[in-house]
Amino acid sequence: MADVAQAFVPGHVTGFFTADRNPDPTKTGSRGAGIALSDGVTVTVRAADSVSVVLNGEEIEMEAVQRVLDALEVQGEVRGVTDLPLGSGFGVSGAMALGSALATNQAFDRRLSRNELVTIAHGAEVQAGTGLGDVVAQAHGGVPIRLEPGGPQDNFLDAIPTRGRIEYHVVGELSTDDVLSGSTDEITEAGKKALSEVVSEPTIQRFMRASRTFSRESDLLTPAVHEVITDVTEAGGNAAMAMLGETVFSPGTGLSDAGYDPAVCGVHPAGATIETEFD
Amino acid sequence: MADVAQAFVPGHVTGFFTADRNPDPTKTGSRGAGIALSDGVTVTVRAADSVSVVLNGEEIEMEAVQRVLDALEVQGEVRGVTDLPLGSGFGVSGAMALGSALATNQAFDRRLSRNELVTIAHGAEVQAGTGLGDVVAQAHGGVPIRLEPGGPQDNFLDAIPTRGRIEYHVVGELSTDDVLSGSTDEITEAGKKALSEVVSEPTIQRFMRASRTFSRESDLLTPAVHEVITDVTEAGGNAAMAMLGETVFSPGTGLSDAGYDPAVCGVHPAGATIETEFD
Repeated sequence: MADVAQAFVPGHVTGFFTADRNPDPTKTGSRGAGIALSDGVTVTVRAADSVSVVLNGEEIEMEAVQRVLDALEVQGEVRGVTDLPLGSGFGVSGAMALGSALATNQAFDRRLSRNELVTIAHGAEVQAGTGLGDVVAQAHGGVPIRLEPGGPQDNFLDAIPTRGRIEYHVVGELSTDDVLSGSTDEITEAGKKALSEVVSEPTIQRFMRASRTFSRESDLLTPAVHEVITDVTEAGGNAAMAMLGETVFSPGTGLSDAGYDPAVCGVHPAGATIETEFD
Repeated sequence: MADVAQAFVPGHVTGFFTADRNPDPTKTGSRGAGIALSDGVTVTVRAADSVSVVLNGEEIEMEAVQRVLDALEVQGEVRGVTDLPLGSGFGVSGAMALGSALATNQAFDRRLSRNELVTIAHGAEVQAGTGLGDVVAQAHGGVPIRLEPGGPQDNFLDAIPTRGRIEYHVVGELSTDDVLSGSTDEITEAGKKALSEVVSEPTIQRFMRASRTFSRESDLLTPAVHEVITDVTEAGGNAAMAMLGETVFSPGTGLSDAGYDPAVCGVHPAGATIETEFD
């Protein structure tokens, strides 16, 4: 038993989604599509006398992580380090939950399978109200299409087989919990339409277009985000809103070409991975 | 349309397997478990007037690749480059089939999804008789456990959440086609037993032990491989036979510690990935 272990979980921007509720949190989730990012969260777990969660050096409350540690019946210190902002649609809480599950399993020799750990993290995130689909997408990597909602026992994923540079620009914050706790019927209707678009032609271009349409039809598009997307379109690029954050992402050099100074990363081909090696 | 595209597919050593036949090649496959390797095959596809397959500079016949190009209705030149030997249990033919599918999709703008491409490569490999489970494992990456046989529409995968150094030593060749075209009842019985062992405790140690037992009970263990495994065990290490090749693999430094001069790589966390980036 190592007593300490580390995992890396890619960030994830969601282009469109549905909200699919079920009495069982591991069957609750969302359909949709997004991009796993090479910018992500490195999560380290070590044994401790009590549970604490630290993100970029600052102690925080994060219910999803607490729930993961409870489910695995351990006390530990969870430290996350990331360049991604919290509350801006990058799946940081999902990454913390999934990274905690993977690293705790190794540090405490819990001997669970990958799917079991993803299920625990997904259920924890759903119960905390901070996300519906990030965890399973972050476990998959690439440009995942979530065809069925829920954890790994229930969902069904496909992906757009592509790779490349991704730029993003953060305008502000949105509360996932606020949006998801309201009526989501309109969102789900728009999400189902976008999903069928991308299934009929799984390319990055069609994904971006479907995501833009979704942001309008779901009424989630904010004026500030709309302005940035318009700038990118006028410069000949392709941009969309990251759900749920006031963030714009663009494949290639869309934001740079429009005169912004975006953060730059890439599609992350692998899903979340344990980084600590076996002895 | 790029006209040329490149993909990387990890090698894959199978520890144990079952042979599950179905009239539909995309439902045919195997259950079992193995390790995706950071040593793999880089596959480049470009448009050409006729189909040709080149591996490490030498033109070869490879039915699985031919079938992939037929299914995608293209003529092209497929070039594979790898350090892994053919016919020694590393899934080189599966890697060539899957890499061809991913790269062809991009080079010829075929707009298929990742699952569709994996299904085509898996079906091609099954029909060629060169493998039953490598393609889906190579698409997954990590240390995949194949709980149900077949392509992505039918199978169900889990994984051992682990990472580390893998050594391998090639003793000789075995023909997958010869073994799979004979009676596989004994193999499948031994494979089902090994699978239930690993499902009950998904760790690398249990996987190695179940693989060793499988190689004896399936009667696939050769005297030369047995000797190497015994040497590693006596040196305090953990080794097993790669199915189907006369190859021994070992996590950590098992083969080195036993005085061998093995090839060294690691668990490959990502599945097969396209390497050519979008414009």
